[in-house]
Amino acid sequence: MARRALWIGRFQPFHLGHLSMARRILGAERDLLIGVGSAQYSHTPENPFTAGERLEMISRALHAEGLSRWTAVPLEDSGVHAVWVSHVTSLLPPFQVVYTNSPLVRRLFEERRAKILELPLWKRATHTGTEVRRRMRQGGDWQSLVPPTVAAYLGEIGGEARVREIGETRGGSG
Amino acid sequence: MARRALWIGRFQPFHLGHLSMARRILGAERDLLIGVGSAQYSHTPENPFTAGERLEMISRALHAEGLSRWTAVPLEDSGVHAVWVSHVTSLLPPFQVVYTNSPLVRRLFEERRAKILELPLWKRATHTGTEVRRRMRQGGDWQSLVPPTVAAYLGEIGGEARVREIGETRGGSG
Amino acid sequence: MARRALWIGRFQPFHLGHLSMARRILGAERDLLIGVGSAQYSHTPENPFTAGERLEMISRALHAEGLSRWTAVPLEDSGVHAVWVSHVTSLLPPFQVVYTNSPLVRRLFEERRAKILELPLWKRATHTGTEVRRRMRQGGDWQSLVPPTVAAYLGEIGGEARVREIGETRGGSG
Amino acid sequence: MARRALWIGRFQPFHLGHLSMARRILGAERDLLIGVGSAQYSHTPENPFTAGERLEMISRALHAEGLSRWTAVPLEDSGVHAVWVSHVTSLLPPFQVVYTNSPLVRRLFEERRAKILELPLWKRATHTGTEVRRRMRQGGDWQSLVPPTVAAYLGEIGGEARVREIGETRGGSG
Amino acid sequence: MARRALWIGRFQPFHLGHLSMARRILGAERDLLIGVGSAQYSHTPENPFTAGERLEMISRALHAEGLSRWTAVPLEDSGVHAVWVSHVTSLLPPFQVVYTNSPLVRRLFEERRAKILELPLWKRATHTGTEVRRRMRQGGDWQSLVPPTVAAYLGEIGGEARVREIGETRGGSG
Amino acid sequence: MARRALWIGRFQPFHLGHLSMARRILGAERDLLIGVGSAQYSHTPENPFTAGERLEMISRALHAEGLSRWTAVPLEDSGVHAVWVSHVTSLLPPFQVVYTNSPLVRRLFEERRAKILELPLWKRATHTGTEVRRRMRQGGDWQSLVPPTVAAYLGEIGGEARVREIGETRGGSG
Repeated sequence: MARRALWIGRFQPFHLGHLSMARRILGAERDLLIGVGSAQYSHTPENPFTAGERLEMISRALHAEGLSRWTAVPLEDSGVHAVWVSHVTSLLPPFQVVYTNSPLVRRLFEERRAKILELPLWKRATHTGTEVRRRMRQGGDWQSLVPPTVAAYLGEIGGEARVREIGETRGGSG
Repeated sequence: MARRALWIGRFQPFHLGHLSMARRILGAERDLLIGVGSAQYSHTPENPFTAGERLEMISRALHAEGLSRWTAVPLEDSGVHAVWVSHVTSLLPPFQVVYTNSPLVRRLFEERRAKILELPLWKRATHTGTEVRRRMRQGGDWQSLVPPTVAAYLGEIGGEARVREIGETRGGSG
Repeated sequence: MARRALWIGRFQPFHLGHLSMARRILGAERDLLIGVGSAQYSHTPENPFTAGERLEMISRALHAEGLSRWTAVPLEDSGVHAVWVSHVTSLLPPFQVVYTNSPLVRRLFEERRAKILELPLWKRATHTGTEVRRRMRQGGDWQSLVPPTVAAYLGEIGGEARVREIGETRGGSG
Repeated sequence: MARRALWIGRFQPFHLGHLSMARRILGAERDLLIGVGSAQYSHTPENPFTAGERLEMISRALHAEGLSRWTAVPLEDSGVHAVWVSHVTSLLPPFQVVYTNSPLVRRLFEERRAKILELPLWKRATHTGTEVRRRMRQGGDWQSLVPPTVAAYLGEIGGEARVREIGETRGGSG
Repeated sequence: MARRALWIGRFQPFHLGHLSMARRILGAERDLLIGVGSAQYSHTPENPFTAGERLEMISRALHAEGLSRWTAVPLEDSGVHAVWVSHVTSLLPPFQVVYTNSPLVRRLFEERRAKILELPLWKRATHTGTEVRRRMRQGGDWQSLVPPTVAAYLGEIGGEARVREIGETRGGSG
Repeated sequence: MARRALWIGRFQPFHLGHLSMARRILGAERDLLIGVGSAQYSHTPENPFTAGERLEMISRALHAEGLSRWTAVPLEDSGVHAVWVSHVTSLLPPFQVVYTNSPLVRRLFEERRAKILELPLWKRATHTGTEVRRRMRQGGDWQSLVPPTVAAYLGEIGGEARVREIGETRGGSG
């Protein structure tokens, strides 16, 4: 009960499914560590927003709901799965349980004997980062899939235009 | 006034001089971002503690003082100074002012036109990470230089023994 | 008017569309910096030629046309878009304007408030690196798409055989 | 005749085609160096097993056949093909000939003037890593494609479950 | 008793103290894994020889003594101690005990709960890599500190000249 | 005679000894490739200037002397000497001879059978980067050691202040 839980996602962007998950984990655990994965990537179709922008979305959304007892930490990918649990563990304060819906994350932590929990995803047909980004790219209603504070923030930073422009590009920055 | 301030350090370990600085910045600014530098390094004489252990020290020390309105974020060094400000900026939520006593950090941010502030260090003759680590290595009284919660945490994780053992090693892990 | 312009491409290989672009930029600007992107890659279907081979193609093609007032510089990709403009800027002498047809490159420089210009591509249906490489792979007439000096150089280094052989390979070098 | 030969593969996992190749090379050469490529990767659909697990498979399979006069060495990929031959050469004891069926590996070594040999693949329709992994993922008979010692070892480490679980995951570890 | 032991060193170069250690470990354990650390480095005053050259020294020295039941594996340093044990473990076949005289290596493995053993160094005043390299640089009798096969091999590759020349250089390769 | 020569330096900053060397090489060779080493480093006591700033110094100094037939290319260090010649060769157009006064650079190219030439350094007691930086740090007359165009450029970018400020810093940018 008096545990600190780790929950890892990419949050590209932070949507209502993420908010639902955060609320449920905080209902069950003492503290929540949010790991913001693929932290070094941004300005790609899969990862349009920087880690700093994602931290800001999380912060605005959770504060607007009055949620506290959480911390968010950017986690850079190395691509080397065999050292990933060590890497993550060294960058984070101690935690006792991991929430994940990713089979890979579950397996990597299980091979290190960590305790893993799974919660059902909330409206998983529509409330995914993939769907939000698809609507941003095609001019659909993405705003209804994210918390109002996130919609407002993405408006401030021109998020929709960024997603649309980088979606037209093939290849790297060069 | 209603600004978010960035303050960067290595916190090897977090000591009373750091606590004094955090209290003064929070007295002047709305929010405080604490960047934990050289985040990937640990188990060396200069960087004995992991970023996660340093986040835990900061968290325990600031909570014990009743300080809130802060967030701490690990920042990995790339060694490439010309991209360091971009790197840091991409990993952090937006900030309006930088507190630093490092001439290099000041210069790197100034070349990018950031606003820089400096506060006098507190008891800088003794309250430095270098002195704390020296005392840990030589069996001196390091506990009086750090907040009680940090002394207790370093006791739990065997910090003194770690500093002493790695201080005896020359060369890399191999 | 008296500006130094930056123009970035991969030049896999340097073709007549590139030559047309170089001529037009040099007609409008005082100096031209040519950034040779993805410089560390070679011997892949997308990036068959080394940066050094691409510098040689550019040099032979521009000298044959009597074009001067340009410099070409290899630029390695890091894959981290958030630091890419800083990275490029630190490796290049100062420039005042960027020519690009890539939405991503335009956006990354615009977020840093650089001045961006676009020129219409020349015969873009056929004069692309993709088409040249496709013809090299399939034994078509690629020679008519590149300057004669480039066709000659690619002959000297066995470029067509290289493109054909690595096109047959799946996976990495091992 | 009295040569040391290099043979490079990924061995994901080591199968009967690999065993046949090892036996034929050892029949023709004095010593065999086995380079285990993409050594840093594991827990992906293409590269499920760590380099250490692959070294163990090779060791058990070759010892069971009574084969000696070989050494296996993990080789990390850098993705930079232009330095790959230098990289490999610096990590390995001296060798005089390279066996490969990869057009890319052959070309990279040929550009450095190494001696290259090719042997026909053994039952290449079924005896490939791709087919073994496909059967592991889909619950087919993969055991008959690998040496009995490898089947036993993969049983011990839960290899089939690993391949199946990571096959369900899209994206990186986070 | 029926264990596989790991022993890690840099072997710059392999000397008689190393040979004594290998003989003693093989007397106590079933199998010996030799990790050749800092594998990516060479041509520096501290690390003059490539990993491949060091593998060759080990192989010639141990074969000349009739020692078998060992395998040597190059291990690249990442400089990130917190992931080093995971990194090493992923590159090596399974082992049950670690022999080391380095306080850092001992601590890193102990924090992961590995079993550690220590053996007294043999003639540690003179039989160190540092002393061998010092004599090579200054024209002293280094040959008597290494096995005859290693002295012969270093003669073949011009090892003494290499150590002397790079000892005169300050700074990097450029 | 009709050769392209490679000459590598760090040019921190470009001084009159460098100018003398460039003039002599251009007197003997058809073309000159100038490799600007340690290209990724800047803002350190040993490497205060970015590669771009160094390219600009070289360009202004050589143009002021009316020297043409040269190209300057930034070269990032990897720290892995065994692949350094391959790395450099892949980033540069073909060259036939290497000028160097560094024993390490000479050895690395000689092991690859490149042709090496050495020219006596010009006024090596005072005309070194180390001496220029020392004078910049201590307020001495550094201007007389560099070409007038370089002194003017370093004035424009505040080079002396940068060298002085970063000279006061210990440790990394964090």
